[in-house]
Amino acid sequence: MSAYAQLEKSFHRLANIEGATAILDWDWAVIMPKGSAESRSNQLSELSLIRYEILADPKLGDLLCDAEAKKEHLDDWQRANLKEMRHNWMHANSMQPDLIVALNQTTSKCEMLWREARKNNDFKSFSKGFRPLLKLIREKAEAKSAVFKMPLYDVLMDEYDPGITTRDIDKHFSDLQLFLPSLLDEIIDRQGNQTVPIMPKGPFNLIKQKELSLKLMEKIGFNFDSGRLDESHHPFCGGVPGDVRITTKYDEDDFTSSMMAVLHETGHALYERGLPKDWRHQPVGKAPSMSLHESQSLLLEMQVCRSREFFSFASPLIKTLLSNTKSKCLLRFDPENLYRLAIRVAPGPIRIYADEVTYPLHVMLRYHLEKEMIEGGIQVNDLPDAWEQWMKDLLGVMPKNHGEGCLQDIHWATGEIGYFPSYTLGALIAAQIFEKVEREIKQVKSDIAIGDFSSLMSWLLESVHSQGSCYSTQDLVERVTGRPLDTRAFEVHLRTRYLS
Amino acid sequence: MSAYAQLEKSFHRLANIEGATAILDWDWAVIMPKGSAESRSNQLSELSLIRYEILADPKLGDLLCDAEAKKEHLDDWQRANLKEMRHNWMHANSMQPDLIVALNQTTSKCEMLWREARKNNDFKSFSKGFRPLLKLIREKAEAKSAVFKMPLYDVLMDEYDPGITTRDIDKHFSDLQLFLPSLLDEIIDRQGNQTVPIMPKGPFNLIKQKELSLKLMEKIGFNFDSGRLDESHHPFCGGVPGDVRITTKYDEDDFTSSMMAVLHETGHALYERGLPKDWRHQPVGKAPSMSLHESQSLLLEMQVCRSREFFSFASPLIKTLLSNTKSKCLLRFDPENLYRLAIRVAPGPIRIYADEVTYPLHVMLRYHLEKEMIEGGIQVNDLPDAWEQWMKDLLGVMPKNHGEGCLQDIHWATGEIGYFPSYTLGALIAAQIFEKVEREIKQVKSDIAIGDFSSLMSWLLESVHSQGSCYSTQDLVERVTGRPLDTRAFEVHLRTRYLS
Repeated sequence: MSAYAQLEKSFHRLANIEGATAILDWDWAVIMPKGSAESRSNQLSELSLIRYEILADPKLGDLLCDAEAKKEHLDDWQRANLKEMRHNWMHANSMQPDLIVALNQTTSKCEMLWREARKNNDFKSFSKGFRPLLKLIREKAEAKSAVFKMPLYDVLMDEYDPGITTRDIDKHFSDLQLFLPSLLDEIIDRQGNQTVPIMPKGPFNLIKQKELSLKLMEKIGFNFDSGRLDESHHPFCGGVPGDVRITTKYDEDDFTSSMMAVLHETGHALYERGLPKDWRHQPVGKAPSMSLHESQSLLLEMQVCRSREFFSFASPLIKTLLSNTKSKCLLRFDPENLYRLAIRVAPGPIRIYADEVTYPLHVMLRYHLEKEMIEGGIQVNDLPDAWEQWMKDLLGVMPKNHGEGCLQDIHWATGEIGYFPSYTLGALIAAQIFEKVEREIKQVKSDIAIGDFSSLMSWLLESVHSQGSCYSTQDLVERVTGRPLDTRAFEVHLRTRYLS
Repeated sequence: MSAYAQLEKSFHRLANIEGATAILDWDWAVIMPKGSAESRSNQLSELSLIRYEILADPKLGDLLCDAEAKKEHLDDWQRANLKEMRHNWMHANSMQPDLIVALNQTTSKCEMLWREARKNNDFKSFSKGFRPLLKLIREKAEAKSAVFKMPLYDVLMDEYDPGITTRDIDKHFSDLQLFLPSLLDEIIDRQGNQTVPIMPKGPFNLIKQKELSLKLMEKIGFNFDSGRLDESHHPFCGGVPGDVRITTKYDEDDFTSSMMAVLHETGHALYERGLPKDWRHQPVGKAPSMSLHESQSLLLEMQVCRSREFFSFASPLIKTLLSNTKSKCLLRFDPENLYRLAIRVAPGPIRIYADEVTYPLHVMLRYHLEKEMIEGGIQVNDLPDAWEQWMKDLLGVMPKNHGEGCLQDIHWATGEIGYFPSYTLGALIAAQIFEKVEREIKQVKSDIAIGDFSSLMSWLLESVHSQGSCYSTQDLVERVTGRPLDTRAFEVHLRTRYLS
């Protein structure tokens, strides 16, 4: 068996272990009784150790060198697969096992402290867990930096968005800074002068809300033969491409929150389903980056569904399912009112509730603080003050407490430093790809207005989903849209939607 | 680290992998969309391969010899654990890897053929899958027989019930034969002369049936913080001791079927929960046999809950939850009527619907046929005729088709030959242990009559559940009841319940 074939065999095993892990993670978030956490932690640690042992086997390193030396016998997909294998291998082997163990243990502790600290507005107790974690993350960044020959923060981002550098991010963010603050002012001004859209009055039956979710998913193309919709505390898309499981969270008083979450996660789910089936158990069969994954959820949620066309299709469905005897003002279910509710812009302290205009500002704040933390420019104790200062400067709001301030996100507590930029990259990619979609499929908006998502989804499947990691995120965006990623499409999108 | 300590480490890893497998199996039966079977099969095969690789590692064999040579340094539990480790190791290493692979593949195929064949009453197509499977099972038995120095069928039973021999089974079954046929006639006669108990009239609301199940489980002592109740096609108890998950199947027209299934599975679940916590990740922390496991479900279902006392407690609860405007005859919910419904005896063709009196006859039939199959005394083609003959002789009934004849069980299709005797051993053990319980806890029946299961469950926890595999099944039964297992208690139980 050739070195490459042997590698495929090992990575097939890894994919199965990762798939088992994904289902067990889903179960934890959705189904598991809370007293079962210890058993489950043991199982998950075991799978993670097995994964590491396969990747750290010295034989694998030899096979990689061997296969790379005979690259000319491989086709394009195999070569791209080999590149991804090397990338995975480098990340797994760039740290000493004791650093991995220390990171796992310290992360678990910090996450538990964070859960309590957020509730109790207790930054001091969070910092006790976060200070040693940050130290270990810096050690990780240093170890990886030596292997990858990349700056510290870049190598952390590389785990989520391979190939993206701080230079790229700095450029995109300074481009955004050029127009976003003034655009935000203009939008707020304009929306302030319009009559305020009115939320239909609940309570909205939870079973009917679920029915609405299922109907919308089905219309968009979700395959319930190989996937599910459930509930969890935070909406997410989990499972594996052959068994994609999305979740949402229903709110009796506000049906839009669960509905928009379902549309967002359906974007993730259809991307997973559309990944190349022949490569499902190989690295090249996965998404090349978190930003490309996020682009597919944001394309569906922000570009496609927060639109007049979507609500013109969805409003009768929503009205039929959710209007009740108490909702006397049926006009509130009219497309225009629902659309204008879906595009309300208002700066606030909390990222996950932010609209698409202010969202990048939340990301910028975190990006700047993370870079400083990793490069040593800021101490953990100074985070709350720095957070408030950035909040005031970028969004003009003040968090009432740490829970809606620097303790609002789970990312730092779980050591996921370097992740936040992917959200905004995803928004930029979504805008640039959808701009292309509109140019290529003239009738796409009128299709959506009648609830026909097939032309859109076929195009995305062919151009994006089925490409797996055959190209890097940057190359794929350029191939699909005809130019490198920039902020123009996003700016045009915002100006068109909010100011025209 | 001592050889024994290293072994504990490896077996701890195995327990985690088995735990992950158990949750993924549960998910398959309860939650998984049907199109996801391929992904899941891949994940499960992978975990099974990893388990095998750990057990087949030559280092493990050396460690076992080393630890056994220094056994004098170990305490009783550690010694018992070491014995179980050796037993697991022998079963895993007694077959060549290619036989394991062939068995897995042939079993999958045969199971699929069986599903269709049972539906279509098509023995011929089943036999195409079963003939090669039986051949491989014989090869397995021969390979294991050489290692364990045991007869072919004994070594197959040894996987489910270590230490039990065909000599034991033959003795128990011939003892049963001495009284069961005439006892059955007497019972049928007697029940024929009584007024027939009448089933309360449904439909019974499924949500209320679930509420009843949850209430009963709670009363008996199920811990919902580390366990769940769900639905599946066949009721089962799955998960791990830290996360015990039982299932049932609701029938709108007959609330007793789901209720009795819940009581049965709760018996399994409380046993799992009661296994020694300190040994949860070691072989000695598991049940020593399927028969002991089954004894704990049958003790709760058959000995405790199909009793006047149980229905005197449960009848008001059942009446409150399930009686409806249509069930005009509320008398049908009275304890005596429900009790007499729960102990109706009627020979029928299907094992899983059999009462406790005829159940052993179903097992005997399968035991005789299995032994003949393994020893070569019967060909696959002759199974349907032989089945009918045994049915007529033992139970006096004729299956209408293969689906309620020799294709009714999944066991042969999944290669689980040697399993059936455990059901009847479990019934005998349950009777013998409960006889002891009644002698030790004078008020146990009056406790049950007021829905207080605590004295019973504490006794079982201390005497049986917390013993794990520290003793063999036979030794444990003898320690707990004061004499080796026999059929006397079972006979007394049947005579008392059905004829006094």
